[in-house]
Amino acid sequence: ELRGALGDLNVGDTVDFLERLGVKDRAVTFRLLPKGVAVEAFDMLDQSLQHEIIEGLKDQDVALFFESLDPDDRVRLMDEMPASIARRMMRHLDPRERSLTNIVLGYPSGTIGRQMSPEFVAIPEHWTVAQAMEKVSKAGEDAETLYTLPVVDPARLLRGVVSLRDLVSTDGEALVADLMNEADSVDVDHDAEDAARMCADRKHLAVPVTDSEHRVVGIFTVDDALDILERAESEDAARHGGAEPLHRPYLSTPVLTIMRSRVVWLLVLALGAALTVQVLDVFEGTIEAMVVLSLFVPLLIGTGGNSGNQAATTVTRALALGDVGTRDVFKVLWREVRVGITLGATLGVLGFLVAGLFYGWDIGTVIGLTLLSICTLAASVGGLMPLLGKKLGADPAVFANPFISTFVDATGLIVYFMIARVVLGI
Amino acid sequence: ELRGALGDLNVGDTVDFLERLGVKDRAVTFRLLPKGVAVEAFDMLDQSLQHEIIEGLKDQDVALFFESLDPDDRVRLMDEMPASIARRMMRHLDPRERSLTNIVLGYPSGTIGRQMSPEFVAIPEHWTVAQAMEKVSKAGEDAETLYTLPVVDPARLLRGVVSLRDLVSTDGEALVADLMNEADSVDVDHDAEDAARMCADRKHLAVPVTDSEHRVVGIFTVDDALDILERAESEDAARHGGAEPLHRPYLSTPVLTIMRSRVVWLLVLALGAALTVQVLDVFEGTIEAMVVLSLFVPLLIGTGGNSGNQAATTVTRALALGDVGTRDVFKVLWREVRVGITLGATLGVLGFLVAGLFYGWDIGTVIGLTLLSICTLAASVGGLMPLLGKKLGADPAVFANPFISTFVDATGLIVYFMIARVVLGI
Ligand SMILES: [Mg+2]
Ligand SMILES: [Mg+2]
Ligand SMILES: [Mg+2]
Ligand SMILES: [Mg+2]
Ligand SMILES: [Mg+2]
Ligand SMILES: [Mg+2]
Ligand SMILES: [Mg+2]
Ligand SMILES: [Mg+2]
Ligand SMILES: [Mg+2]
Ligand SMILES: [Mg+2]
Ligand SMILES: [Mg+2]
Ligand SMILES: [Mg+2]
Ligand SMILES: [Mg+2]
Repeated sequence: ELRGALGDLNVGDTVDFLERLGVKDRAVTFRLLPKGVAVEAFDMLDQSLQHEIIEGLKDQDVALFFESLDPDDRVRLMDEMPASIARRMMRHLDPRERSLTNIVLGYPSGTIGRQMSPEFVAIPEHWTVAQAMEKVSKAGEDAETLYTLPVVDPARLLRGVVSLRDLVSTDGEALVADLMNEADSVDVDHDAEDAARMCADRKHLAVPVTDSEHRVVGIFTVDDALDILERAESEDAARHGGAEPLHRPYLSTPVLTIMRSRVVWLLVLALGAALTVQVLDVFEGTIEAMVVLSLFVPLLIGTGGNSGNQAATTVTRALALGDVGTRDVFKVLWREVRVGITLGATLGVLGFLVAGLFYGWDIGTVIGLTLLSICTLAASVGGLMPLLGKKLGADPAVFANPFISTFVDATGLIVYFMIARVVLGI
Repeated sequence: ELRGALGDLNVGDTVDFLERLGVKDRAVTFRLLPKGVAVEAFDMLDQSLQHEIIEGLKDQDVALFFESLDPDDRVRLMDEMPASIARRMMRHLDPRERSLTNIVLGYPSGTIGRQMSPEFVAIPEHWTVAQAMEKVSKAGEDAETLYTLPVVDPARLLRGVVSLRDLVSTDGEALVADLMNEADSVDVDHDAEDAARMCADRKHLAVPVTDSEHRVVGIFTVDDALDILERAESEDAARHGGAEPLHRPYLSTPVLTIMRSRVVWLLVLALGAALTVQVLDVFEGTIEAMVVLSLFVPLLIGTGGNSGNQAATTVTRALALGDVGTRDVFKVLWREVRVGITLGATLGVLGFLVAGLFYGWDIGTVIGLTLLSICTLAASVGGLMPLLGKKLGADPAVFANPFISTFVDATGLIVYFMIARVVLGI
């Protein structure tokens, strides 16, 4: 019955369906798929799910699916598996695929070399369009893409790129050299996320990858850029929320895995929050003298947290998009100080009026001044933290929401009680 | 001098440079660019910046840049401009471009019809590969893409897609019908973000867009999908942080615009936080009786906020990726309840031990029980909120971090003082 229902779905829908199942159901369902559909669906699945499916299959089936992948996708899957299993699977590959896979494996993870395909079609610059078309039409199944073709000189140095679109629209006698465009290329050691962002930002279908001598060694395509960016954005989103990314579809993730993705951050943040207990302990006398001060604690630190989060989120996103870099630290600080003061002044005046009306003007003054100070402090710190994180080589997103909240909770309380002591003369 | 420096940059780098400048500097710099570079750079700029540049140019220059855009990109720019100016610019267009633009303008914003290109190359299914190649090579500059070609029957109904890759790799006498693949298509009224996610998820370079009779009316390409997703993700990120998205590069945004993107949310959240003052006011007697209880307020509501944010962020991201939908509400709730209880139990035991050790075991009991309750409550509410938001037609991301924090601040305090009253018998 399930087999019948699956027969009506196209490959894309089958993948969506598989992604909603638990580990065991997915393994069973996958085995019911016709071979052709299974191979295509396997290619489209996330590496974490590919890995689980492979674990549940017999050895000869594993070899089939493993062999069917492109070299770059194969390496991504291998990076998910224990090294011993990955090595065993490599032995089953035919020599050509094995050597292509080894090229990609030769580059450190995190670099674009590890994400590129070594199966590119390079065109010599002195060729005619007809010669180029001849080569392209013979390249067949193996090439990663035929749409963006690196143009090279006799030493295989990159001279430009020519698109298949331009080739098919042009007369056969024309020279490739006259048709080619300047190439945006990436160095093979370059950071993969950076390269993916560039590819997406400049709307390239593919970008040639070059070595230190500017020789073409591979091609990086937009479909892989999309995967890298989706992963990077899921990572940023998760860390914004104070959790580690799941790197797999939510409904297919065991509850314990979700719990583990959160517990460490929750403990670290609670440890940070323990600071607030100590700060309040120091000011216990002030609170006892004026219990009314304790009523505003959640409002004040909450608003500070919000203001800090706004700044941190904006700057983290700008960093991810490449709109700002660590060299812009003073520009960012100067902007956020001004934004913080404006916001703090607005809220401060409101807080002064409302709190003053209900609890007296001296309390109003304390609340107003505290809002002004906390908003300015929080916006500046929130704007700086992601840049600092990046500079130190940490993930800027870690320094967003939960971290800033905890930081502002502790420092905001100090600011609050200092102002209260001065204004109220306690 | 600047002109010399600009001459050394390629178009992509020029765009990156322009994106870092303020409005006036950008207008000046843009006028220094050679015409050809300017036209290409203009095409790559964000619509908000295109709009500003257009405002600073003379009428005949405006016409040139406006005419140089593809119909879909032109409509995106028009959607940024006041209707009167957009109408005036339409009058300068040549008739062909004007009628193409009107096709796209005919679909409501938010639909894929408004984002597609009407310049597609359709191939009749009974044609040979040679006939198809002949049409493709003549399509020239105008077509949005030549790489994914909709295959149609005599009534222009979509039958499949054929890739240029398959065409150039196959013999001229072969039939297109034998070469084509099943097509993932989108209905012209379909939500644009949804369609973009599908295109990206399934790694299509282009997707045919069809009307209610399944006739092809346009093509949607991956470069536009990338733009839509980048915008959607910037929106989600900003709202996670409690701000409206800037929709433009950070450094090029005036401080007042940044301030405006934040002030409304900050005020709304402060209004919500005012609730906490009232809750505490109700329990003022309890605090006065035991000031030590006030020491734990920031720790408890902070931890609750963190736990809620973790859940909300995970579910919001899963919604954005299409991994869960509103129909999954009970599955999500059941998962988050279990995750919340596990996390709450872990933190609760720790809280009981540490607080008990320093402040006595009855305080320890209150803290432990409160952590257990708050974490469970926060994870469940945090997981449900984004789904509820989506169901109500609001942006799910709005119900993430700041909103959850404020909600948990108020409800967490009630839970805390209720537990304290019962356990301590106040
Ligand atoms: Mg999916
Ligand atoms: Mg995916
Ligand atoms: Mg592939
Ligand atoms: Mg291949
Ligand atoms: Mg952009
Ligand atoms: Mg690939
Ligand atoms: Mg990252
Ligand atoms: Mg950019
Ligand atoms: Mg375009
Ligand atoms: Mg066009
Ligand atoms: Mg387009
Ligand atoms: Mg959205
Ligand atoms: Mg908070």
